[in-house]
Amino acid sequence: MAVNLKTPNPADLLPVPGIRLGVAQAGIRKANRNDLTVIELVPGSRVSGTFTQNRFCAAPVTVCREHIQREGIRALVINTGSANAGTGEQGLKDARATCAALAGILGIDAHQVLPFSTGVILEPLPMDRLLAGLPCAVADLRADGWFDAAHAIMTTDTLAKAVSEQLTLGGKTVTITGMAKGAGMIRPNMATMLGFIASDAAIKQSLLETLTREAADASFNSITVDGDTSTNDSFIAIATGQAGNAEITNAASDEARAFARALASVAIRLAQAIVRDGEGATKFMSVKVEGGASREECRRVAYAVAHSPLVKTAFFASDPNLGRILAAIGYAGIDDLDVARLRVWLGNPDEETLVAERGGRAVSYAEETGARIMRHAEPIVRIHLNRGQAETTVWTCDLSYDYVKINADYRS
Amino acid sequence: MAVNLKTPNPADLLPVPGIRLGVAQAGIRKANRNDLTVIELVPGSRVSGTFTQNRFCAAPVTVCREHIQREGIRALVINTGSANAGTGEQGLKDARATCAALAGILGIDAHQVLPFSTGVILEPLPMDRLLAGLPCAVADLRADGWFDAAHAIMTTDTLAKAVSEQLTLGGKTVTITGMAKGAGMIRPNMATMLGFIASDAAIKQSLLETLTREAADASFNSITVDGDTSTNDSFIAIATGQAGNAEITNAASDEARAFARALASVAIRLAQAIVRDGEGATKFMSVKVEGGASREECRRVAYAVAHSPLVKTAFFASDPNLGRILAAIGYAGIDDLDVARLRVWLGNPDEETLVAERGGRAVSYAEETGARIMRHAEPIVRIHLNRGQAETTVWTCDLSYDYVKINADYRS
Repeated sequence: MAVNLKTPNPADLLPVPGIRLGVAQAGIRKANRNDLTVIELVPGSRVSGTFTQNRFCAAPVTVCREHIQREGIRALVINTGSANAGTGEQGLKDARATCAALAGILGIDAHQVLPFSTGVILEPLPMDRLLAGLPCAVADLRADGWFDAAHAIMTTDTLAKAVSEQLTLGGKTVTITGMAKGAGMIRPNMATMLGFIASDAAIKQSLLETLTREAADASFNSITVDGDTSTNDSFIAIATGQAGNAEITNAASDEARAFARALASVAIRLAQAIVRDGEGATKFMSVKVEGGASREECRRVAYAVAHSPLVKTAFFASDPNLGRILAAIGYAGIDDLDVARLRVWLGNPDEETLVAERGGRAVSYAEETGARIMRHAEPIVRIHLNRGQAETTVWTCDLSYDYVKINADYRS
Repeated sequence: MAVNLKTPNPADLLPVPGIRLGVAQAGIRKANRNDLTVIELVPGSRVSGTFTQNRFCAAPVTVCREHIQREGIRALVINTGSANAGTGEQGLKDARATCAALAGILGIDAHQVLPFSTGVILEPLPMDRLLAGLPCAVADLRADGWFDAAHAIMTTDTLAKAVSEQLTLGGKTVTITGMAKGAGMIRPNMATMLGFIASDAAIKQSLLETLTREAADASFNSITVDGDTSTNDSFIAIATGQAGNAEITNAASDEARAFARALASVAIRLAQAIVRDGEGATKFMSVKVEGGASREECRRVAYAVAHSPLVKTAFFASDPNLGRILAAIGYAGIDDLDVARLRVWLGNPDEETLVAERGGRAVSYAEETGARIMRHAEPIVRIHLNRGQAETTVWTCDLSYDYVKINADYRS
């Protein structure tokens, strides 16, 4: 049911020099599926990350935050099936033991490993099975492992999410390949469920960190499926430095700007893939808010519309019950909003119509037009607040029977 | 599908001396149903109200706010089928014309009428039909009109919501009868969709206003169905002064406290009835948050849990996937929350079990117990934050297939 999203073509996922990936069937929750992934980084790789703001953050997130403070990260380990969240002290011990076990196999230190978990919350990690799977995943390490890894990190995702882009920096070809997972409990706050983007670019650590935050802000922090911020959200950017370009150190340089654009592009494609594969999604919706006094107020309005169950069910039904959009704008928390000044358009990639102005329905609006536009799989709500120059876009999906079905049945 | 809610028995709805109600079939949206209600108040009645905080408030809410500033309210007029919201200048003209027309029939001034509308947003009121219905509704005015009026104000409600209570004040019997409507777009902020409570008590205007706010806070402002704050929320309390009690003027008096308790009790019963009849509801859930540093932070936690689509679908499925509750607590926005100190219980009116403590699952917790407790139609989530003495309770319902069905089909 994913909206205009297909399984990536393995040939389109470009190896990133300095990166190898391996997967294994550890049987963490279900048998006969790859559920354990190891990513190995060449020495000298730089790693940057952003993590969930949820106070109930998962044990691996806590360990990631500790380990990423130090330089020299050499491996990532990702399990699906269990989130290792809401697991107290034992959860922390398990995350540390996972790092130590992988470090032992690879001949590195435990603090050079970043752990990630995704799946059911409040259940302990089955450590025996996880540890038994690690040697298999390490034995599977290969440069062309992105396709299998993108599948091995899935939970309720129906399709794997992975993309590659290339650019030229100082005459050298630089590759960026990324993968992400997530379909529900998606309202990232600093990062998405799990997103990993690797490049062979040579770039200064502090600049990589800045560009990671900017890319997250433009992508994973601009989507929502159901408004639930996960306990495990993590987004990691890796730069192995194997491309041979002169190290990018100046944020204002052409190279830095080109790399930032490409990194953000990969992140946005992955974030949009998460929404396209949103639980039960039948529509991929863009909510653009323009003319705001600040980006923050644009985001409040966009998220109020994107989170409204009434708006989302109306889009599922292709019913232009557009007053629900006005109601959501009205409760977005902008106390001095003058509703008589704002305008709302309904569109899709092919056409757009003015729906509301002067506090009411636009005289020119015809419901047949609205209904036709809404039937498109990728509708666009555009709102002009007429208060300033700021703008933002949030991507979301509709709310369907299948969202309820998937989440009522998830564990069974 | 309403949860433990029945149509009120007409004999249980006590007339309130000084109040008459009449209904009519105006054909505003659908034929052959009562959709227009007039409530007439005896001269000298005191009226207090709280209204939606939505910036896109409906035209009748704007007019209500103007008229209620002045004393001498003598009539209320309520239509269903159209919300007269998102209707711009024409909507205001229509609301004022409605007041003027009813005032002409009753021989009072237009500013002595409060108008209310509920239904679809962004569509104009069909004024011809509404005005033609007014004389019929006035001709129908009677003291025992509560049962019919409670039905005439319904939209997606499956059952009418009305209750009566009596108390003795200074040796006089005082009657309180109220009605409310609402099933979706329910996340009141100051008041619910529409709630009207009338009493024959004699009470000072300023004290009535205080008690109205307190009652709203304990009732309509403590519920949510889908998190959507309506454009039309209004809660009106009326005191006709016909009971013969000495006017209540002292907020600290026994009479004031008894009246406040009874008013809040009626408001809470109506608010809970709205949740029990929540769109698609199969469960009536109470979320109690205790041990907070402030009532505000307790409300944030309670609403985060009550709004989470993942929590609501888990309760629909009776699946004790309780990590979702921890995740919602974690993103409620309390930055210094120590998740290792809080405890979470799952219960129903018959039993309760500790689910989480020390940041993880309670050792004593058994999933069979959780599953059994959740199958009850009235589950209770109790959270102790261990940060202070404040507490609050929010009532909500689960998220089912039928919520999607109702809201995808509402206008068709």
